[in-house]
Amino acid sequence: MTPSTSASPEMTVNQTDFHDLDKQDPLAHLREEFDLAQDLIYLNGNSLGVLPKAAKTRMAEVIEKEWGQGLIRSWNTHNWITLPQRIGAKLAGIIGAQDKEVIVADSTSVNLFKLAAAAVRLRPKRTKIVTEPGNFPTDLYILNGVKNFIGQEIEIITVPSHEVMQHIDENTALVCLTHVHYKSGTMLNMKEITAAAHAKGALMMWDLSHSTGAVPLALNEANADLAVGCGYKYLNGGPGSPAFLYVAEKHLAALEQPLSGWFGHANAFAMSDDFEAAPGIEKTLCGTTPVLGASALEVGVDIMAKVDPQQLRDKSLALTEYFMRLMEPLCETYGFELVTPKEQSIRGSQVSYTHPEGYAIMQALIAQNIIGDFRAPNILRFGFAPLYVQYIDLWNTVKALETIMRDASWDQAQFRAKNKVT
Amino acid sequence: MTPSTSASPEMTVNQTDFHDLDKQDPLAHLREEFDLAQDLIYLNGNSLGVLPKAAKTRMAEVIEKEWGQGLIRSWNTHNWITLPQRIGAKLAGIIGAQDKEVIVADSTSVNLFKLAAAAVRLRPKRTKIVTEPGNFPTDLYILNGVKNFIGQEIEIITVPSHEVMQHIDENTALVCLTHVHYKSGTMLNMKEITAAAHAKGALMMWDLSHSTGAVPLALNEANADLAVGCGYKYLNGGPGSPAFLYVAEKHLAALEQPLSGWFGHANAFAMSDDFEAAPGIEKTLCGTTPVLGASALEVGVDIMAKVDPQQLRDKSLALTEYFMRLMEPLCETYGFELVTPKEQSIRGSQVSYTHPEGYAIMQALIAQNIIGDFRAPNILRFGFAPLYVQYIDLWNTVKALETIMRDASWDQAQFRAKNKVT
Repeated sequence: MTPSTSASPEMTVNQTDFHDLDKQDPLAHLREEFDLAQDLIYLNGNSLGVLPKAAKTRMAEVIEKEWGQGLIRSWNTHNWITLPQRIGAKLAGIIGAQDKEVIVADSTSVNLFKLAAAAVRLRPKRTKIVTEPGNFPTDLYILNGVKNFIGQEIEIITVPSHEVMQHIDENTALVCLTHVHYKSGTMLNMKEITAAAHAKGALMMWDLSHSTGAVPLALNEANADLAVGCGYKYLNGGPGSPAFLYVAEKHLAALEQPLSGWFGHANAFAMSDDFEAAPGIEKTLCGTTPVLGASALEVGVDIMAKVDPQQLRDKSLALTEYFMRLMEPLCETYGFELVTPKEQSIRGSQVSYTHPEGYAIMQALIAQNIIGDFRAPNILRFGFAPLYVQYIDLWNTVKALETIMRDASWDQAQFRAKNKVT
Repeated sequence: MTPSTSASPEMTVNQTDFHDLDKQDPLAHLREEFDLAQDLIYLNGNSLGVLPKAAKTRMAEVIEKEWGQGLIRSWNTHNWITLPQRIGAKLAGIIGAQDKEVIVADSTSVNLFKLAAAAVRLRPKRTKIVTEPGNFPTDLYILNGVKNFIGQEIEIITVPSHEVMQHIDENTALVCLTHVHYKSGTMLNMKEITAAAHAKGALMMWDLSHSTGAVPLALNEANADLAVGCGYKYLNGGPGSPAFLYVAEKHLAALEQPLSGWFGHANAFAMSDDFEAAPGIEKTLCGTTPVLGASALEVGVDIMAKVDPQQLRDKSLALTEYFMRLMEPLCETYGFELVTPKEQSIRGSQVSYTHPEGYAIMQALIAQNIIGDFRAPNILRFGFAPLYVQYIDLWNTVKALETIMRDASWDQAQFRAKNKVT
């Protein structure tokens, strides 16, 4: 039994098969790199990744040695000053970009603001930003902030992602989409949509928050202009980890971004009164590098950088495929509705279902140490981080869910009351 | 011998006196809270504060227990979700504000952008921002970014701080000044300048980066409108720590800031497409809280919150006063020139000198484990963090400096070559 494409619906699977899949898994050893409780099934790496064991020792070193002993000297002696570029270069390998096109900075939201503002500045005669309704909220909120504050007329067009290409026109400055949708797990065709944007002279920005470390990425190959991504999901960078951004080399010289803080200066420590943007990707930095957060992120990125993207994708597809298959009887019996595409080419690394009692059901699962999450109004999300999720976890999760749904003691009204579901 | 005002120039002091001062110092016990090497004299807390011992255990707990074990659940179970407000409320006590007026977020630079943009939006018919040349560079750079990107006509007027009040007029939207100057250590009169801004209907924003934890602050009493500050200097929050910002209660309802990310939403986890700003200070948040950095900051803030502001100020003034006094003979003999005010009421907690060989001299001091810093083109800065700097450090620093200057083996040309000073 091999994973991925061989998981056809007509095949019967049992618990032993999942143990076998784990035995054959070329990525199985990576789970050892993470500090995961044995009794926990963690299917929420799409929201907050787990703790790499190496992060514990690395953070103790950064705190005690670099900060405590090195103090101000560590900006040079421990290369704090180039942390954003160093981790950016490692990320470049993961997202299919050149080292000099990627940097670690601020939060995803702040980076979205920088690059969206920079994009409309690069297309000053155009007035439209095209995105999708139901995009990750902060993307929409930030685009709205750009619209409200930036000194150019901007109209934000929201159309379903499958219609986006039809709505890109000669007046479109920027198309801004999330590559893998945070709710449905639908993965968009980066190459095709980017080409459609370029055909009309628009710039393309991708939010890679739910893609990076989950699916193979090839930004250069797709000719993407701009991208942002999150450090604390599949990259396992720690809660509220610094984010990253990408600017295609061809835009680096002309790009101007509004958050022109001292770390984006060509020579910050000259302390001159006049801002002169750094020539390269450093121009997108703003304030002082968050050394603690960035150091934790680097540990997660280092692990991810070792992983073969095809093996990652194979396992991700196998996990999601088997999970959907195991869930099929529950869909039929208990009314779960799959919202994630069955078609592999447009699926990320999560599987989501709607259920009217979704919140209460997820609470019941979490009470059994099986952690997925719930997104209003009715979506249960299960994220499958290929670095540490096991095949047997799929079996155990669905069996637990089946028991919850079947168990007479699981009283919907009681759950609704207990969990204050109104 | 009592510290502070009693340090008159005519009094002779010797090494024993400094030991005595340490014995009498009511803040002396606080040094034990920090992980400082015995052989180090650290006079750079104005640039990067030292490691609180409690930060080591706290960070291990946050990393292993809250992130590693709690995982996504810790947003609720460990109150990550309210970290920015919780630390903000603690900071409020330190800066003389109401709890609900202060929040921890992003970097100082990013916060400057938010509040400067918000300020010009609050004064839409006015076109001037008044600041000073030689202000901390990122303040000037960010104001420039606001000018270049925000959809209102903005002119940035830079005038020396002592002339600022004359240049505020009916067309001034915002006056933006650093309370304690990063180079000279000059402290401005917050109350007087704020009143001058208000007299013309302008808003007043203070950068407290070199003040917070160094001098007593009373934002509410001074009627300040807006403020930003740094977490990694006198607050000892760790390298690149999250920063904070203050918005006076009277402006909270009307304030709109451009970085409208999901953490600034009235109900972030409703995940709605439309942005609705949180009603209070939370509206100034943008992306996901940097939990690791914020948790380290909280340890530093907790220590500072215990300190009596008057004792802090007394010790700070005594340290700076004695240091200047010990340096007087070196100024006469070796050409150091004091740039910090002798007048106590306008002095922060650092003392700076110019010297043409400033860079090489500071390198020589650092080689002896006495750490101050150098700012181009010729300024030696010595920061006196009252929580851990000892009086005997003053004596030992000046003695070491005297030896460096006197020592025939200290060859300026050699130092210039070695340190690549051109």
